[in-house]
Amino acid sequence: MNDPLKIAGKSFQSRLFLGSAGYPNQQVFLDSLAASGSEILTVSVRRADLTGYGEGLLDLVAGKVWLLPNTAGCSTVKDAVLTAQLAREAMDTNWIKLELIGDRETLYPDVEQLLRAADELVREGFVVLPYCTDDPIICRRLADVGCAAVMPLGAPIGTGLGILNHYNIETICRNSTIPVVLDAGIGTASDAALAMELGCDAVLLNTAVSKSNDPVMMAAAMRAGVEGGRMARLAGRIPKRLRAEASSPELGLIGT
Amino acid sequence: MNDPLKIAGKSFQSRLFLGSAGYPNQQVFLDSLAASGSEILTVSVRRADLTGYGEGLLDLVAGKVWLLPNTAGCSTVKDAVLTAQLAREAMDTNWIKLELIGDRETLYPDVEQLLRAADELVREGFVVLPYCTDDPIICRRLADVGCAAVMPLGAPIGTGLGILNHYNIETICRNSTIPVVLDAGIGTASDAALAMELGCDAVLLNTAVSKSNDPVMMAAAMRAGVEGGRMARLAGRIPKRLRAEASSPELGLIGT
Amino acid sequence: MNDPLKIAGKSFQSRLFLGSAGYPNQQVFLDSLAASGSEILTVSVRRADLTGYGEGLLDLVAGKVWLLPNTAGCSTVKDAVLTAQLAREAMDTNWIKLELIGDRETLYPDVEQLLRAADELVREGFVVLPYCTDDPIICRRLADVGCAAVMPLGAPIGTGLGILNHYNIETICRNSTIPVVLDAGIGTASDAALAMELGCDAVLLNTAVSKSNDPVMMAAAMRAGVEGGRMARLAGRIPKRLRAEASSPELGLIGT
Amino acid sequence: MNDPLKIAGKSFQSRLFLGSAGYPNQQVFLDSLAASGSEILTVSVRRADLTGYGEGLLDLVAGKVWLLPNTAGCSTVKDAVLTAQLAREAMDTNWIKLELIGDRETLYPDVEQLLRAADELVREGFVVLPYCTDDPIICRRLADVGCAAVMPLGAPIGTGLGILNHYNIETICRNSTIPVVLDAGIGTASDAALAMELGCDAVLLNTAVSKSNDPVMMAAAMRAGVEGGRMARLAGRIPKRLRAEASSPELGLIGT
Repeated sequence: MNDPLKIAGKSFQSRLFLGSAGYPNQQVFLDSLAASGSEILTVSVRRADLTGYGEGLLDLVAGKVWLLPNTAGCSTVKDAVLTAQLAREAMDTNWIKLELIGDRETLYPDVEQLLRAADELVREGFVVLPYCTDDPIICRRLADVGCAAVMPLGAPIGTGLGILNHYNIETICRNSTIPVVLDAGIGTASDAALAMELGCDAVLLNTAVSKSNDPVMMAAAMRAGVEGGRMARLAGRIPKRLRAEASSPELGLIGT
Repeated sequence: MNDPLKIAGKSFQSRLFLGSAGYPNQQVFLDSLAASGSEILTVSVRRADLTGYGEGLLDLVAGKVWLLPNTAGCSTVKDAVLTAQLAREAMDTNWIKLELIGDRETLYPDVEQLLRAADELVREGFVVLPYCTDDPIICRRLADVGCAAVMPLGAPIGTGLGILNHYNIETICRNSTIPVVLDAGIGTASDAALAMELGCDAVLLNTAVSKSNDPVMMAAAMRAGVEGGRMARLAGRIPKRLRAEASSPELGLIGT
Repeated sequence: MNDPLKIAGKSFQSRLFLGSAGYPNQQVFLDSLAASGSEILTVSVRRADLTGYGEGLLDLVAGKVWLLPNTAGCSTVKDAVLTAQLAREAMDTNWIKLELIGDRETLYPDVEQLLRAADELVREGFVVLPYCTDDPIICRRLADVGCAAVMPLGAPIGTGLGILNHYNIETICRNSTIPVVLDAGIGTASDAALAMELGCDAVLLNTAVSKSNDPVMMAAAMRAGVEGGRMARLAGRIPKRLRAEASSPELGLIGT
Repeated sequence: MNDPLKIAGKSFQSRLFLGSAGYPNQQVFLDSLAASGSEILTVSVRRADLTGYGEGLLDLVAGKVWLLPNTAGCSTVKDAVLTAQLAREAMDTNWIKLELIGDRETLYPDVEQLLRAADELVREGFVVLPYCTDDPIICRRLADVGCAAVMPLGAPIGTGLGILNHYNIETICRNSTIPVVLDAGIGTASDAALAMELGCDAVLLNTAVSKSNDPVMMAAAMRAGVEGGRMARLAGRIPKRLRAEASSPELGLIGT
């Protein structure tokens, strides 16, 4: 099946974005990445340069995946823009996953500042993929200012609660003029499949893989979930019915 | 990954059972079967012999899949037992998917009669896989009388409502001494994945594939869903948390 | 509003049944009973006679409520029938809430034995209200053998998980020829309201009141929940819509 | 129980706000208002003056309820502010329910403009109650600019879908420094009860009453739902448990 994901003119065969944080060790990370089939890897600007799985992380994955630096941990427009600029220089990419956190408890996006930062970064030539709430109006506004995709949350980061509000995600997907990437909240393969069935173009996850008991196997599970959900979406599921309907014909029953 | 499903001493690589009813035509059915990767095919005794995709159906799939005749449409112990005996002769198998329907509106199993029919068929040497409610006590009793697997429903046949009662399915899986095959209710790939994540050993479905807009693609979607759900189960998902937790470390934040 | 609940020819103004077990002390129990407005009180045969809030419990509530002895803890037809007979003598009533438990872990009903015990007790002249699963076929069979009401569970006893399977409860209520009393699983007032909205004729609960932080207030909350749910059912709720619809007319908007 | 709702220094005994639009006729509206026990009535500025149940609506309810004009239908800061100013003059109140709609399909709030309008109106001396999304960060920001309460939505206006995202509403309630009034989405009494159980201080609804088959009875149902949910919240519900727990003691069982 040829069904590429297109963002900002670039095509990807995989619809699963993987985060690079929190794996038990570098080898497990690399094996998980391979098992996931991901072509887009999000990396924290800070970690990429300073800490993590060693200075060589970027070298190890270079050429294999598309790097998507993020502004994780930023809580002001100024910091987010600075971090994006730093990423552009350090990692030689104008793509940025824009995170602008409203508080430390929920790690929810601050959508007001997010819009301002997105607007500024687009003007500076960035390809901006903002992490946002599941608010259809905000998603439309982010498209209006020129973002390349929107990344609404399913549930708070790291909770594994899945998609709390199916209705909003479905509404966003139905109306969006740019790709929708479900970001945050995914806990298991059925969550990833559901995201795709609701109409998302891709799924981003990190903790659900890196903190599972077996990250490599969970990465493969997520890959299957995303692919299964995508195919189910394209195949067109049966409608939900309130009454039972026999799959087997009733003719020729013994006893009738 | 070597992770066979074992029922009555027989091993299967696929954990997806497919039903044979209701496809647009024979070729779509055969292509869907191939795409699903299923090794177990349920067939109505009546249809196999009398109607359906032509007399040659059994010949076409012979040797490729394990046939599991069902007693679809039976509503008395006597009819179900007779149908099972007929299937044994006609299809040369002592396996039977035992369906004993309580009413035509819900197509819910009549568990009281089901237990009696299961008991009788086991005594006659059948390998019995009963379609039953999601009642943990009934599932245990069916194991006690010697069934080879239990097949609790997720939702009424043909509704596509998914798994209505996660709690019961999880309880059944935790306690069962025999394989649990989720039967009925599956509408899309995420439902199939969820069944496996709750602990089911396999999933049976029919309408969700045969009546989707694109049965062949949906068969592939279901295969991915089942495989993804199984891997996620084995990998050990992250616990659900009520509070957010950053995946990226907080150290080295710009602005801190 | 005159909207009596009728069971076996007897009318009740309240649609909330209360259990008598597990209150902090006798006064809290009596105050909770008063706050609940309940007219039907379930009591364990053993406790009523032997232990509990003192020998005087039955005297204290005599004439104020209708006593409904239960066979809690019984796991065989014989024990349940014996317990019912004992209750009839000791408490001078032919009403019995029939509990026949399938295992100690889930406390789920053993519906096969339940049907046999119900049949026997009806023949002996009892007014039988069986605690059963949310299986529509079993509920119909219990009506067929002459039960005065059915009492399907919302969730396992004492869990407070609410109503796990809305679909089944709604199906049971739509088809039942006898009153449906939701029994077990209720955790809070909205659960009780929901039960009534799904079509139940009454709700039975115990732990949700007796083990709450403030049983008397929770009893009042449950009363309001049941009454609110019942009125909402009778009033006929608005249909669920997938798209928003303004409550205020659009004419005369400033700016248009 | 003395448990007043306090907003901007004013106390109310009822925690149910009622909207005034869409009733079959004026008498049904007045009877519904009485049955609801509401002390706060929202009215569209346009309707109050120009159309609706006759010029006398405001006279009829004058002195009986606290009027809360709304800016329904406004989609720009300018229009919303103008409408609020008009309401202040026409209805002699500085309270305003601030609605600033992002699009006509979802009627979702435009939170970015909402913040600006709220800030401006607070500075002009208004008591501002904004209709907002269920975004905890936006709710906190609205409190920061001086709003008197926040009114997050449960689901889109008029859908009757209930509370789509329990998690967010609970998070907002846990953290809010000002009263939280659940606004929009309520379809039936159990929804209203649930809102209160999640921690809301009050509930606003309109369509669920005015468009039900029997608005007066539904108004009474909603009153009971809100009161039941509030009491349940205060009483402290039992925790949800995954395993059953007998309410009746096991000692003295017949057969043991």
